[in-house]
Amino acid sequence: GETEGEEQDAVPVPVVRLRYGEVADATSVVVLPVCLAAEGEEGVEAAPGWCRGEGEMGVVVAERGWRRWVVLPGWGPAAAVWERGGVVVEFGDGRVLPWRMRQREVEEGVLVVVDKAKKEVAEEGYYLVGGGGGGRVLGVERGRKLLEMGKKKALGGVVLVVRPPKEDEDYQLRDEDWE
Amino acid sequence: GETEGEEQDAVPVPVVRLRYGEVADATSVVVLPVCLAAEGEEGVEAAPGWCRGEGEMGVVVAERGWRRWVVLPGWGPAAAVWERGGVVVEFGDGRVLPWRMRQREVEEGVLVVVDKAKKEVAEEGYYLVGGGGGGRVLGVERGRKLLEMGKKKALGGVVLVVRPPKEDEDYQLRDEDWE
Repeated sequence: GETEGEEQDAVPVPVVRLRYGEVADATSVVVLPVCLAAEGEEGVEAAPGWCRGEGEMGVVVAERGWRRWVVLPGWGPAAAVWERGGVVVEFGDGRVLPWRMRQREVEEGVLVVVDKAKKEVAEEGYYLVGGGGGGRVLGVERGRKLLEMGKKKALGGVVLVVRPPKEDEDYQLRDEDWE
Repeated sequence: GETEGEEQDAVPVPVVRLRYGEVADATSVVVLPVCLAAEGEEGVEAAPGWCRGEGEMGVVVAERGWRRWVVLPGWGPAAAVWERGGVVVEFGDGRVLPWRMRQREVEEGVLVVVDKAKKEVAEEGYYLVGGGGGGRVLGVERGRKLLEMGKKKALGGVVLVVRPPKEDEDYQLRDEDWE
């Protein structure tokens, strides 16, 4: 993964880009349930509330059955939400993110990793919200903006944004960069 | 993974031992539904009939919801069954395997990767069967023995046996061995 985003110093959310085969480069992986943005609040609430590893064979057991999953490298933020109720929301359009992006990023989908235990809105965070504007069923919003609008609760806090891999070798990190 | 088993030349089923962090070493991974041996035939039948990758973000979608999953390196046999109906059965006791084992192997659990599309028993294969003897609800049996007993159908063909990782460094393979 490559940490990117112009606002990194201001944004407390890591944005990483998967490399091809990267699930490969971590010494551990996490398996998280995925909702489509179109499934809205209901999808987020319906997703299993926890997943945990069981035994030494790497078997993962979820609170309840679910159809859609993603395996991510065990990056800190993803690993941290894993057992306590993480859900990934798949957005087909990068413009859901409330910060300025490069043209290329606007055109690609993103996975937003959400901590469902962080529903209390804090000024400096980013949050997954339902019933958003612009025709989106789910959205990502700055905590500051939500508080200005009087919203103190969200569906969860955004802990990581994952972008798809791209062919461009310049964007590929070496193994050492993550180990 | 390390291919092992004294009968390798006679057994058409690869037996591999996971290394710690091995999910890491493959350039691709597969996510397969897991049944506990105690769930029996019903568990095997209830498991999702297929899983497939969707889009470039590595999201996996299953035929239906399921609670228990395992991520395996994209080894040939596991990758081959993945989309057409693979299921993994977790046995707590290695003695389920119908071949001679080292003492250490007898005491550990195994994951048996099964191709549900291979229900027709052939003499040279190994198969997952229900209602087995010895108090086991599910079992693994040689095709030859099943045919001798007049059983021409099984729950599926065994394509891979996965053993848990162990501390012993002697058993660890180098990356090159699998690439």
